[in-house]
Amino acid sequence: MAFPKKVIIREVGPREGMQIEKTPVSTEDKIRLVDLLSECNFPVIEVTSFVSPKWVPQMADAELIAEGFKRNPGTEYQCIYLNAKGIERAQATGKFDLEGVLSIIASETFSKKNTNRSIEETFDEMDQRIAVLNEYRVPISSINVMTAFGCNYEGNVNPQHVIQLISRTMEKADVHGINPDRILLGDTVGWANPVSTEYLVGEVQNKWPDKTIVLHLHDTRGMGMANAFVGLKMGVTHFDSSVGGLGGCPFGGSQGAAGNIATEDLVHMCHELGIETGIDLEKLMEVTLVAEKILGRQLPGKVAKGGSLASYRQIPSR
Amino acid sequence: MAFPKKVIIREVGPREGMQIEKTPVSTEDKIRLVDLLSECNFPVIEVTSFVSPKWVPQMADAELIAEGFKRNPGTEYQCIYLNAKGIERAQATGKFDLEGVLSIIASETFSKKNTNRSIEETFDEMDQRIAVLNEYRVPISSINVMTAFGCNYEGNVNPQHVIQLISRTMEKADVHGINPDRILLGDTVGWANPVSTEYLVGEVQNKWPDKTIVLHLHDTRGMGMANAFVGLKMGVTHFDSSVGGLGGCPFGGSQGAAGNIATEDLVHMCHELGIETGIDLEKLMEVTLVAEKILGRQLPGKVAKGGSLASYRQIPSR
Repeated sequence: MAFPKKVIIREVGPREGMQIEKTPVSTEDKIRLVDLLSECNFPVIEVTSFVSPKWVPQMADAELIAEGFKRNPGTEYQCIYLNAKGIERAQATGKFDLEGVLSIIASETFSKKNTNRSIEETFDEMDQRIAVLNEYRVPISSINVMTAFGCNYEGNVNPQHVIQLISRTMEKADVHGINPDRILLGDTVGWANPVSTEYLVGEVQNKWPDKTIVLHLHDTRGMGMANAFVGLKMGVTHFDSSVGGLGGCPFGGSQGAAGNIATEDLVHMCHELGIETGIDLEKLMEVTLVAEKILGRQLPGKVAKGGSLASYRQIPSR
Repeated sequence: MAFPKKVIIREVGPREGMQIEKTPVSTEDKIRLVDLLSECNFPVIEVTSFVSPKWVPQMADAELIAEGFKRNPGTEYQCIYLNAKGIERAQATGKFDLEGVLSIIASETFSKKNTNRSIEETFDEMDQRIAVLNEYRVPISSINVMTAFGCNYEGNVNPQHVIQLISRTMEKADVHGINPDRILLGDTVGWANPVSTEYLVGEVQNKWPDKTIVLHLHDTRGMGMANAFVGLKMGVTHFDSSVGGLGGCPFGGSQGAAGNIATEDLVHMCHELGIETGIDLEKLMEVTLVAEKILGRQLPGKVAKGGSLASYRQIPSR
């Protein structure tokens, strides 16, 4: 397959990154970061999580963030929630483009540790999940498979197991007359390599040629950008990433490791390959440096320090 | 083309990395680093530079390093030199496997700024360079093209210009009855992307199918590992990299940027793809952490923090 003409990059730093970062970040700074990212003209920004502050204290200020940030008309603003309570909280703010997601974790151990449910229990609850989403009129748009390539507890995940999980989720959805457009393959703990990425993306494309694949890549072992390149080469149009590579990996022994792939590096690679993103890269690189100041540490992203190639081409005397 | 069965990774951190790092490193620590890298069973380590301490003060202790490090019988030890004086100094130590290199910088501005010579002047001096190498019985094994993909001063480099430079260098060598085995493509300032890597490697493979290509990649803009993957996929068997991604980019505005691709991340990706390196990855990841301590800063390499996937597969309870 050929490169897509344009890709949709969802910035997940304010939510996923901030949830994992250990440095406490003020509500003001969180809002500032969302606003600065909005100015970069992202198609989608994941802003925060409406989950129990008991479990995720970093997101206790979700309402304040929602109240504080300014919506950019060209941007979709998403958030995470786990149940009806979370949806109500998110909807009450009036600031979000709520998306309904059917999530499944491919690793049994990871599922139990992270959601306190086995894979089977997740399926058992899915009808209820769908009913709640319907009740609150949240359109169900995506099937998300986390740890789709492997996990630190169980090692490699069999791609056919992932295909089965997606099939079963689709059957569940179908019973309710729902047909989600997107399939998200989450490399939650950085187990994908370029060959396994090519294989799993290929399997999903073959089985569901009409679905949009979303690659959610982490750079835990330095293969994230190579995996993204393989995805682009296979025509994948949707990617998740975080500004600066903000975040980390809190799971099973990889503490201190890199988090999501860095948005600005992904945007830069796309532009170098002639793929549009609609994102203002030079502005985004400035935001990366602001994010580093907010967190008081260097983030793993590269191009904000190296300078974009476009900028060097434009200013020969630089 | 298919992946190679085995690749040769040359560790250039002690030389290229240390030359660029701003933190002063003691001779003792430099020796310690070389010795630790030797224990990882590298096929080749670039140890130091025998150049004028006036120009490169970081390498003023080259003789002391040479004297101090222990040779591992399975490892080739290389060093940099610019002239007869440098060769004499290196040979006097009796510790190096001297390699003769014919170097050319593809960017005229970069060439003038870095070597005080234009491209034409470099060619003018090449006969003399070859004569000196012959005089000192240094086997001429490689043609090295630096800034082969682009440079911050001149932007993109035309691949056909690179092909011409290699051709002209080969003609020069041929006059002396010399036929170097290797062609090194140096992405000195991080301008390569996966498509330009594929294109230039392909052009060189087509024109000189019998030559061994060496990819010398930098990660200035986060594309280094994707470029390495493309190289592997095209059958490239030789790579340069530095432990931890030690080093940086001192050139034209990219100060503070990432340096060479990180050796341990490259080794890890190779192993994940089923490609042998002969290098002890777990040991190397420990050395990365030592290198971070020596330099007093986090290095850009990822897997030493994330943990190798092999280690997670071996210890399911981890």
